[in-house]
Amino acid sequence: MDERSQRSGYSRSRLDRTANRRGDPAWIAQALRSARFLLFSGDRPLFRISDNPGPDPLFDAGTAQRFDAGMDRAVFLGLDGDTALFAAPVPGDETTFDAEGIKLIDVRSVAVQGLVAPALLGPVAQAKSLLDWHARHGYCARCGASTRMADAGYRRDCPSCGASHFPRTDPVVIMLPVDGADCLLARAPRFQPGMYSALAGFVEPGETLEDAVRREVKEETAVDVDRVTYHSSQPWPFPSSLMIGCFARAVSRDLDPDPREIADARWFSRTEIGEMLNHRHPDGLFAPPSMAIAHQLLKSYVAGETIF
Amino acid sequence: MDERSQRSGYSRSRLDRTANRRGDPAWIAQALRSARFLLFSGDRPLFRISDNPGPDPLFDAGTAQRFDAGMDRAVFLGLDGDTALFAAPVPGDETTFDAEGIKLIDVRSVAVQGLVAPALLGPVAQAKSLLDWHARHGYCARCGASTRMADAGYRRDCPSCGASHFPRTDPVVIMLPVDGADCLLARAPRFQPGMYSALAGFVEPGETLEDAVRREVKEETAVDVDRVTYHSSQPWPFPSSLMIGCFARAVSRDLDPDPREIADARWFSRTEIGEMLNHRHPDGLFAPPSMAIAHQLLKSYVAGETIF
Repeated sequence: MDERSQRSGYSRSRLDRTANRRGDPAWIAQALRSARFLLFSGDRPLFRISDNPGPDPLFDAGTAQRFDAGMDRAVFLGLDGDTALFAAPVPGDETTFDAEGIKLIDVRSVAVQGLVAPALLGPVAQAKSLLDWHARHGYCARCGASTRMADAGYRRDCPSCGASHFPRTDPVVIMLPVDGADCLLARAPRFQPGMYSALAGFVEPGETLEDAVRREVKEETAVDVDRVTYHSSQPWPFPSSLMIGCFARAVSRDLDPDPREIADARWFSRTEIGEMLNHRHPDGLFAPPSMAIAHQLLKSYVAGETIF
Repeated sequence: MDERSQRSGYSRSRLDRTANRRGDPAWIAQALRSARFLLFSGDRPLFRISDNPGPDPLFDAGTAQRFDAGMDRAVFLGLDGDTALFAAPVPGDETTFDAEGIKLIDVRSVAVQGLVAPALLGPVAQAKSLLDWHARHGYCARCGASTRMADAGYRRDCPSCGASHFPRTDPVVIMLPVDGADCLLARAPRFQPGMYSALAGFVEPGETLEDAVRREVKEETAVDVDRVTYHSSQPWPFPSSLMIGCFARAVSRDLDPDPREIADARWFSRTEIGEMLNHRHPDGLFAPPSMAIAHQLLKSYVAGETIF
């Protein structure tokens, strides 16, 4: 099955999440003993570096314990066949692990460089979002008391006021406005020189995806779009977004970019987009790498998959 | 433009959010003086009851002040033409407002009973989600200190650790598994007797919308689905979800419902669905009301809009 959402990085997972196991502490405790682990130092997973079979982010329970992994903070990712996969934080930094032949590699590089099989990128994103959420949500937003992890990592409970808190996933629309044979891309000030990408922004309370697309395009470039069609979605663990990729039909062309967010916005021809995807644009302009949903939107656009 | 997402309740808004104004306290302070207000007692908006022009949830600034509305907690919803619209909490309950000819009406009833114009339901949902978020997020999840509202209601800042917190919007998939001419609906234990609706569940960290659909259908009914297509989205302010409606192609039919979430699950023929939408099913079964995205999914299904 060729599914558009499977084309981006972090979108594929070989795990069965078996959510019904999360609330069974005895099962989780038993599973931890023979589990494999993704271990994170801060927001970076550990990789054992070797030429064969290549960089490996999966560690056994003995190694996890030797590295002093926080087993009480381990989150259950799911079953990989019969093997339970967890993610856990470890203390230490580069210097701690260097002597072990282990490197810390940021999650973006893991995807861009293809350091793990595509079906393990989903679990890496899942682990990064969950561990990051726990690290930044140790207190109850309702009453300020310390909270504690529950449900194998999918909830935090407040012993003081009784509130339950759940990991957040922030929906973000990312869209390609299309006007005939041209499409609209922009650069944020932080981008590498020469890179243009799709416009994007958080969905706000009380709006549909389609309204969010129209609002963001208008706010960022002053362009009006009407019809919006869904393309695909992608987990984006920085820290916990769900990118929702769309095409949008432009009904105006004049650009007035918001200088706080946009360094430059431009209409590109289909031919140029093809060149940018392949790093052959005459001016050296280029698009995000294939792991990014923006790349997949552009690739579909060049292939004529845009439908309104 | 007939957009599927505009067919559900809470999906239409006549406001221009003018997000660029939020960070300008002087502009906001000025706007508050001549604004109109949605006023909430707890999670219920106030309505001035009259036969002509009908129940009215919009109050002027003088009335808002007379009701002791929390102006320092007013959130900016957007511009309705030249008029700024805010939402603010007020103290008091039914008995306080009864003498004023004002009723508190829950947000669900506002939509089901069509008490306001469709284009005001979006702002009501926006107000409900934002006020509820502030009411339940007075403390910093990172350090436990008290936070304060910023950006006219779209951020909370922690003066202690410097963290910024943003309103959350939780993506939820809601889906109709389809097998030929049949589709799968279920009842939760809390439903009114006779009502069946679409399966639904929260998107988890690290998964695509499509994977979330497949996981939830499998977890709740044991049915396998493969292809997933997007139908529409709907803001669902209970407290702050974004419903993302999909069709899913079923590749198995045997049902094994999860008793913790599902009281009954059944395959229905297209004919039965038509009867349920119109409250003419011979066994008295029925579907959710037209403001619900589940209703709109079913209506599209009966109309043959299902596409894989």
